[in-house]
Amino acid sequence: MKITEYINTLRENVAVAREQGKTVVLIPTMGFLHSGHLSMVEAVRKQDEDYEKFYIVMSIFVNPLQFGPNEDYDRYPRNLVRDTRLAQEAGVDLLFTPSVQEMYPDGPSLTRVNVAKVTDDLCGSHRPGHFEGVATVVSKLFNIVLPDFAYFGQKDYQQYVVIKQMVKDLNIPVQVLLAPTVREEDGLAMSSRNAYLRPEERRQAPVLYRSLQEAAQLIAGGERDVNVVREKIRQRITNETNGKIEYIEIRRADNLAKIERISGAVVIALAVYFGSTRLIDNILVEV
Amino acid sequence: MKITEYINTLRENVAVAREQGKTVVLIPTMGFLHSGHLSMVEAVRKQDEDYEKFYIVMSIFVNPLQFGPNEDYDRYPRNLVRDTRLAQEAGVDLLFTPSVQEMYPDGPSLTRVNVAKVTDDLCGSHRPGHFEGVATVVSKLFNIVLPDFAYFGQKDYQQYVVIKQMVKDLNIPVQVLLAPTVREEDGLAMSSRNAYLRPEERRQAPVLYRSLQEAAQLIAGGERDVNVVREKIRQRITNETNGKIEYIEIRRADNLAKIERISGAVVIALAVYFGSTRLIDNILVEV
Repeated sequence: MKITEYINTLRENVAVAREQGKTVVLIPTMGFLHSGHLSMVEAVRKQDEDYEKFYIVMSIFVNPLQFGPNEDYDRYPRNLVRDTRLAQEAGVDLLFTPSVQEMYPDGPSLTRVNVAKVTDDLCGSHRPGHFEGVATVVSKLFNIVLPDFAYFGQKDYQQYVVIKQMVKDLNIPVQVLLAPTVREEDGLAMSSRNAYLRPEERRQAPVLYRSLQEAAQLIAGGERDVNVVREKIRQRITNETNGKIEYIEIRRADNLAKIERISGAVVIALAVYFGSTRLIDNILVEV
Repeated sequence: MKITEYINTLRENVAVAREQGKTVVLIPTMGFLHSGHLSMVEAVRKQDEDYEKFYIVMSIFVNPLQFGPNEDYDRYPRNLVRDTRLAQEAGVDLLFTPSVQEMYPDGPSLTRVNVAKVTDDLCGSHRPGHFEGVATVVSKLFNIVLPDFAYFGQKDYQQYVVIKQMVKDLNIPVQVLLAPTVREEDGLAMSSRNAYLRPEERRQAPVLYRSLQEAAQLIAGGERDVNVVREKIRQRITNETNGKIEYIEIRRADNLAKIERISGAVVIALAVYFGSTRLIDNILVEV
């Protein structure tokens, strides 16, 4: 595995891989890698019998542009030594670990990419500027790597919808793929931010996924009223945890539009604070 | 010369040219071609003795996103038959003439690219949303064509600065080049919008360039006070035409920052209405 913090070195290596006829895959991350990230590498390797067909670039960059002034940019967990080992073991070809200086040499970018509508609610309304920061840095990464495919994890489902919309609107020549959420044994969605949880919070956190599963069962049983299902989730979280609910929403899966009745493909998404730790989770349901 | 209105056809043709080892050049225009546009094709052809080295893509697209609600989108002059002939004669390899539907299949793009600071003044403050529309459509064209080089005319100097900034900020792998303004014999900068001018307005319009030349002479003679030079231009235009001045500015050429004293590379830029026709012009001066 190659590792570089420089855009030019990355471009040289990707160009060589491309000349060798390889398919270039980008997996953008903020590091502090867990099975959620690493499963994406495995997913790529499984796509084809020819292990050498793909050239997998993983980026690790905690992007200051997507954190609000009162968010956890400074304390976001980092461990590049461990990440390097894990990425290598998983089969990454090139690990890109740019500094903030390398990505924003003149300070915060004057140019920003904004995606309307799909960023209006859910995390968008609670984290102003977040998706502008995400869309801007992902634009940069796409232009730097020029990947054929890029993977995004389902845990950040709204992010995936935003990137899909951006790619479509701006004609970016990349195929965006969704990687399933990987969970701890008790159901808690893997997240670098789980490291913040105190023991009691960690014990309660799996209720989020259980409440989503219960919602899916309700829908499987015939319930179609969005508010009834949301209320059921709210009750369970309120009754069984000290978590503070930020939002519980059921939306169209393709564009996150509001619905009153459940039909077609929907996403059930929530954000809940445990102490100062904000956790998100979601499931996709097809009716 | 190939001509297509379809993104997929364009991509196929560009891919073939690239496989043949050609350097891909993009010249984005809004059509109604004049010598200003065609001189860019000639400039490319002159770059290398090997005429076949370059694959020149010219786009013709009157981009609704960059016109304000009270601007001239509907009456902007169009003549695709004439443009096709002129592009072919000049040596364009591929003429890309997408419909609005092809560029914005779902209506106005949800995704927008914004460039701060360099869009604050000059045309930016008088045409709200204009540079957002420009940056967005140029992003799309860059992603569609993936050119090695792209040319922009100096007459729209602020647009060139905006695109340069965007390309730098978003790491777009393209080299942006400035093509000199081509002028009528009497000095009027070539522009598709000159077609709007009534005879008397057309007679007066060359005063714009003469006032810029006079400003350059003043500076060459030692004048360094921005306001003295601006006032001289204002007087000349006011005395010799019925034009209504929108702005006259002298700015740093690289980032359009305000200055009080003239030093280094500066741009002297102006916008003046003749009747309902808005004309812009500028010159670069190095002290």
